[in-house]
Amino acid sequence: MTTLPPALDATAQAAADAAEPFAATAPHDRARALVAVADALEAHADELVGVAAAETGLTEARLRGELKRTAVQLRLFADTIVDGEYLDVRIDEADPDFALGVRPDLRRYLVALGPVLNFAASNFPFAFSVAGGDTAAALAAGCPVIVKAHSGHPELSQRTAAVVAEALAGAGMPDGVFQIVTGQEAGVALLRDPRIAAGSFTGSIHAGRLLADIAASRPAPIPFFGELGSVNPVVVTEAAVRERGDAIATGFVASVSGSAGQLCTKPGFVFVPAGHGLDDRIAAEAAQIAEHRLLNPRIADSYKDRRDAVASAPGIRSIADGEIRIAEDGHGWARPSVYAASLADVAAAGAAVLDESFGPLAVLVEYGPGDDLVGALDTLFEGNLTVTLHVGEREDDERIRGLVQAATRHAGRVLFGGWPTGVAVTPAMQHGGPWPATTNDASTSVGTAAIGRFLRPVSYQDAPAVLLPAPLRDDNPWGVPQARARAGESLNWGSHAAN
Amino acid sequence: MTTLPPALDATAQAAADAAEPFAATAPHDRARALVAVADALEAHADELVGVAAAETGLTEARLRGELKRTAVQLRLFADTIVDGEYLDVRIDEADPDFALGVRPDLRRYLVALGPVLNFAASNFPFAFSVAGGDTAAALAAGCPVIVKAHSGHPELSQRTAAVVAEALAGAGMPDGVFQIVTGQEAGVALLRDPRIAAGSFTGSIHAGRLLADIAASRPAPIPFFGELGSVNPVVVTEAAVRERGDAIATGFVASVSGSAGQLCTKPGFVFVPAGHGLDDRIAAEAAQIAEHRLLNPRIADSYKDRRDAVASAPGIRSIADGEIRIAEDGHGWARPSVYAASLADVAAAGAAVLDESFGPLAVLVEYGPGDDLVGALDTLFEGNLTVTLHVGEREDDERIRGLVQAATRHAGRVLFGGWPTGVAVTPAMQHGGPWPATTNDASTSVGTAAIGRFLRPVSYQDAPAVLLPAPLRDDNPWGVPQARARAGESLNWGSHAAN
Repeated sequence: MTTLPPALDATAQAAADAAEPFAATAPHDRARALVAVADALEAHADELVGVAAAETGLTEARLRGELKRTAVQLRLFADTIVDGEYLDVRIDEADPDFALGVRPDLRRYLVALGPVLNFAASNFPFAFSVAGGDTAAALAAGCPVIVKAHSGHPELSQRTAAVVAEALAGAGMPDGVFQIVTGQEAGVALLRDPRIAAGSFTGSIHAGRLLADIAASRPAPIPFFGELGSVNPVVVTEAAVRERGDAIATGFVASVSGSAGQLCTKPGFVFVPAGHGLDDRIAAEAAQIAEHRLLNPRIADSYKDRRDAVASAPGIRSIADGEIRIAEDGHGWARPSVYAASLADVAAAGAAVLDESFGPLAVLVEYGPGDDLVGALDTLFEGNLTVTLHVGEREDDERIRGLVQAATRHAGRVLFGGWPTGVAVTPAMQHGGPWPATTNDASTSVGTAAIGRFLRPVSYQDAPAVLLPAPLRDDNPWGVPQARARAGESLNWGSHAAN
Repeated sequence: MTTLPPALDATAQAAADAAEPFAATAPHDRARALVAVADALEAHADELVGVAAAETGLTEARLRGELKRTAVQLRLFADTIVDGEYLDVRIDEADPDFALGVRPDLRRYLVALGPVLNFAASNFPFAFSVAGGDTAAALAAGCPVIVKAHSGHPELSQRTAAVVAEALAGAGMPDGVFQIVTGQEAGVALLRDPRIAAGSFTGSIHAGRLLADIAASRPAPIPFFGELGSVNPVVVTEAAVRERGDAIATGFVASVSGSAGQLCTKPGFVFVPAGHGLDDRIAAEAAQIAEHRLLNPRIADSYKDRRDAVASAPGIRSIADGEIRIAEDGHGWARPSVYAASLADVAAAGAAVLDESFGPLAVLVEYGPGDDLVGALDTLFEGNLTVTLHVGEREDDERIRGLVQAATRHAGRVLFGGWPTGVAVTPAMQHGGPWPATTNDASTSVGTAAIGRFLRPVSYQDAPAVLLPAPLRDDNPWGVPQARARAGESLNWGSHAAN
C-alpha cells in the first residue's frame, strides 16, 4: 500500500502506532510533558542558540528571545489543556419530550486528528521550527508530530529534535510521538501518505500552494494549515502624522529592519499623506541600523531581485537606499531600504512593487486628499496577516470606520498605533488571515487557539458508561468542564422571543 | 474581473453587498429573523409539503416531520446565537509584566466569513435544502446565502426560497442575504467567483469531490464543507444477538427502509455472527414494508445497478430480495433488499459489494469466531458518518474497547444499541466524519456546532474603545460572554506544576 522508502515508512508507522496511545494520555500528563520540553530547551539554551546563530545569521539577543518565546509557548499550551476545557465537552441528556421526538443521550468532545506533518520555517529557527508553535499545538492536542526540518538550519534542527524527543520520553510519552525528517522529497512523500492526518507549514506562497494542492488532491484529502505570504499594510492618517510623526517614523524603521525584515508580519507598505515630511527622520533612523546577514544565500538572491524591481519601478523615490552586499560565501548582508511613490504609481506598477519583499524593505504609499484608501486596501492586496491603522487621538469618523471594516475584511489581526512585528502568544492572538496569508482562514498559528486545528469532534450516542471516554463520563474522572443540555431545556427560544 | 452572466453576476454582487451589513446585525436581531423564517415555513406547511410529496415521492408523514425539523433547526440556531457565546470573545488585557515582555491589549472574536454558496441535497427537500441546516447555520453566523437548488425538487425550492426571503425581509434583514440559483453551471460558476467565501454541499462522492477540487484550486482557495458518502457499518456481537436478536432485526429493517433507504446514515453493512438465525425475522419484517418511490429516475437507475451488482457477487445469499420496478414515467419503486455473505466473501468482492447503494439495501456481513472485526472496520471502509455497536448488556472487554476505538477512528458519531438514521439536532450532535463521509472532518453539518464552519477569527490590538466591534468593548452593549486573561494571570503553569 505504501511506496515510501523503508526508513521513511518506519517513521510514518511509528507515528501511526503512537497516535492512539498518545491521544489517550490524560491532558494533565501531556501538559507535564510539554513543560518538560520547555525546561529542556531552556537548559540547552547556550548550545542551541550558538548553533542557531552560526546557521541563520540572526543575532544572539533575537535568538535567546525566540527560544524563550518557544518555551513560553509550550507552557501556555500546557496551561491550555490542563483543565480539559479545550475538549469542548457537550453532553445532551436524553430527553423523551424533545421538540422532535425522543432525543438520545449524546456526548461530544474533540479528539486528536492523528499524525501531523509540520514543515518548519527558515526565519524562526525555534518558534516556527522543530519545537515551534505547530509542534506545541499538535502535541498539546495529542497528535504525534513529524517535523520536516528546514534546510536553513540543519544542525540546530537535529539537536533541537534530540532535546524534544528525550524530554517527551522522560515524561513517559509513547515512542513515536515526535520525529524529524529532512529533505523536500521526504516531506512531499509523507504528505501523500495515508497515515498522515494533517499538514502544517510556514513559508513562501509558492511552496505553500504546492503543498496545499498535494494535501487537497490526495485520494483522501487532509487539512493543511499553511502560513504563506503577507505584506501587512499600514495606514497613517494626516492627524496621526501631525500628532506623532517622528515616533511613527522611528517605530516603522525598527519594525521593518528587525531580524533584517525577514518576518511574516513586517510592514511592507505604509500609506502616508503626501507631504508627510518624514523622509529625513526615516533616513536618519535607517542610517543607524547595522548591516544584517540574511538567513541564507537563496533568500539573499531573491531579496536582491525584489529590491532591484522596486527601486527601478516608475515613480519610485528612494528615502533610504540600503545596499545589499553579497559576500564571497554567498551570504547577503542588507541594511534597510525605504522607498516612496504615489498611490497612483504604486497601483500602476503592480506586482513589481506590490509583491512581498522578504527582507528589510518597505514602500511608503503617498496618498492625496482625493484618494480612496479603502479602495486601495481592497484592490492592491490580497489577504494579510495584519493591517495596522495609525489614527489621530480622537479620530473615529466614517472614513476611519471604513478603514477598520476594510482591515477586518483583509486580515486576521487589526492593530492600532503599533507595529505588526512581535506577535504575542496569548489566548486572544489571531495569526492568520485570508489567502494567501494562510491557506485556512479559520485557524491561527500563534496563540493557544491554535490547538483547534489538530482536533476533530466525535459524538457517542447512548453509550454505556463503561465504554465512554473519560471526559464524557458522568463521574468525570479528569474533572473537565462539561456543558450540559438537560432534558426539557433543549429549546429555549420561546423565552428569548419575549424580549 | 468576473465572467459570470449578468443575472448571476448580480446575484453574487447582491450577496457581497449584503455581507457587511448582515454581519453587523446584532445576534438578537438575527435570531429573531431565524425564528421568523421558522414561523413562515410552518405557516406554509400544507402548501410546501404538498409540492414536496409530488416532486420527491417521499411520504407526507416524513415530509411533515422534516419540515418541523427544519423549523426547529432554525429555532435552535436562534438560541445558539442569541447570547453571543458563539462569538468566542477572548480579551487579553494589556500586561506590562508578561513573561515575554509587554503584552498589548488583544481582543479576538469570530466574524462571518462572507457569502456562502450552499448546494442543496436531493434526499432532504427541506432539512438539507433551501432552508436546511447549512442555510440556517450560515444565516445564524451572519453570512449571506446563495442556495443552488437541487433539480429533484425545483418548484419546492422556488416556493421555499420565496417564503424564506420574505420572512428575512420582514424581519428587517438586508437585501441580498438570501438568494437561490438553479443549474449545475450556475453553481460551478459561482463556486469559482471571488465573491463567494465558502461552499457547502450534501450529495454524492463524485459531485462532492468535483466541487471540493474546484474550491481548493481557485486562485484564492475557499473552505468547502461537503457531506458525501457513508455506508454506516454496524457491528452486532454474539451476546447482543442472544439477548435481543429479534429487536435488532426489527430495528435494522426499519432503519434500512425508512425513506426508501435514501438517507446518508442508512446502515449499509451489519456485521453479525455466522449462524445468527435472524434471516426469517428480517425477511418477515421486510415483507411488511410497502413499495416506495425513489427520489428520481436517475437515482432509481443507479440503485438498480448497485442492487444487481451486490446480488450477483460471489457468495451472496438473499434474505429479502425486494424488487425494483421502473414505472412508465421512469420513476423507480423499491422494497427492501437484504443480502448476506461471509466476511471473507465481502472482502473478496470489493467495491461491487462495498460501495454505497443509495436505496433500501443492506448487506449482513457474517463473521466467525476467528475473524478480526477491528481489522475489517479498518480495511473494508473509508470514513463514515456513523459506526454503530450492538453489544451485550455488560460486555466491556478488550474486544469491545477495540471496536469502540476503531469506530472512533472512522466515524464522527458512534452509536450503541440504536440505529444511525434519525439525526438529533442538538448541541452535542456530530454529523461528520473522515473522508469521504465529509470533505472536512473538523466540522458538522447537523447540530448547533455547525455555525463554526462559517466563522473566522479576527483580533484587534490596542484598539480605541470607540472603534471596537460591540462584542469586544468593555461596556459590552450586547452582553456577550467575554473570556478575559487579566494582567498577571497570563501564565499559570507554575501553580499547576505543583500538582
